[in-house]
Amino acid sequence: MRKVFQAELHQVGEELIQISQLVTEALTKADAAFRGADVELAQDVISADARIDFLQNDLDERAIDILALQGPVAGDLRMIVGALRMSASLERMGDLARHIAQLARLRYPALVVPSSLRATFAEMAELDITISTQVGVLLDSRNVELVPEIQAANSRINELHRSVFAAIASPDWNEKPVTTVDVTLASRYLERFGDHGVSVARKVSYLVTGQWQPEAYAQ
Amino acid sequence: MRKVFQAELHQVGEELIQISQLVTEALTKADAAFRGADVELAQDVISADARIDFLQNDLDERAIDILALQGPVAGDLRMIVGALRMSASLERMGDLARHIAQLARLRYPALVVPSSLRATFAEMAELDITISTQVGVLLDSRNVELVPEIQAANSRINELHRSVFAAIASPDWNEKPVTTVDVTLASRYLERFGDHGVSVARKVSYLVTGQWQPEAYAQ
Repeated sequence: MRKVFQAELHQVGEELIQISQLVTEALTKADAAFRGADVELAQDVISADARIDFLQNDLDERAIDILALQGPVAGDLRMIVGALRMSASLERMGDLARHIAQLARLRYPALVVPSSLRATFAEMAELDITISTQVGVLLDSRNVELVPEIQAANSRINELHRSVFAAIASPDWNEKPVTTVDVTLASRYLERFGDHGVSVARKVSYLVTGQWQPEAYAQ
Repeated sequence: MRKVFQAELHQVGEELIQISQLVTEALTKADAAFRGADVELAQDVISADARIDFLQNDLDERAIDILALQGPVAGDLRMIVGALRMSASLERMGDLARHIAQLARLRYPALVVPSSLRATFAEMAELDITISTQVGVLLDSRNVELVPEIQAANSRINELHRSVFAAIASPDWNEKPVTTVDVTLASRYLERFGDHGVSVARKVSYLVTGQWQPEAYAQ
């Protein structure tokens, strides 16, 4: 019985890792589509999001079955409840990658972001991809030393997000209003992606150490 | 034992209702602060959000205790897991109300939204307040006939959200870029608020009927 239980718990962990890998792949492709106005790649990301949703649902049903059939307590129970929450955050990260791809598709063949902000958006997306990748490694290794790194990457994203608004507020900003809308939304999506990544990282850390990491790092 | 369990389950339900009422109050005040450039009221909403976060945490801990101590199965188990998810959505709705208040505070003594879009934003906020109020009634009464009404209100919000972007894209839009940013974000916050409300409503409906409501209504 205990052996079956451990196998099922392990399976939930594996599924979380798998979802995080799909999320990393989604954002990597969405970013390439966004930077390169690649409408086929954008479409791939949009279509592939259903797979993430399916896996989240599958993981959640498995977790509920474990709760019903095994009645876990203490650390195992917290792990299952944590998995339910982490799967929700990862699913949302998938949605945000899809939103970036949708913006790329909407403005095709034009690029979404004007040249003055492309380096900023490239850095934000790279940091998000790093966060998502590190979250996958963290889920697998439970090496909580990664958590401050993930938080530091997110702090840098927050800085870049603020710098986007500062650029829009400056007298040099002469873009069309729809471009301002697109840039605002894209920056918001990338900022939220990082927040969800940190949220997953903090939950892993809590499950491993029994203590909550401070909310922000170097902020 | 069974009696204690039912009392605890009831307590979780009561706490969900209480949180939904605080969320409704938060958005009602945030909307008034937003429309009236009332910085004290905005500050109230921002401060009061900690209470929603506290109650969410309290509810979650109670739910985990029930899982650990009572080992609920079947419908009771789904109700507890559902409560964990609904509390997360409600907490997020509280955050979004806070974001609206923060925009009001940031632009004080000016109004955030230019006169041409004030009626649109007023309608969106009213629909969100209706959704949040109806979600509270639904949590209390479990009258699933409210669910299509909640979904219809959200569909109308989505329409209004799109109309905001259409207004910004029109040649008549002569607002400053920062106003475009504010309007984009505020519209996005109000749109997300409705989505979370629908998400809670669909979960209640699932718990009561055992079936998922279709994702959208009249869309």
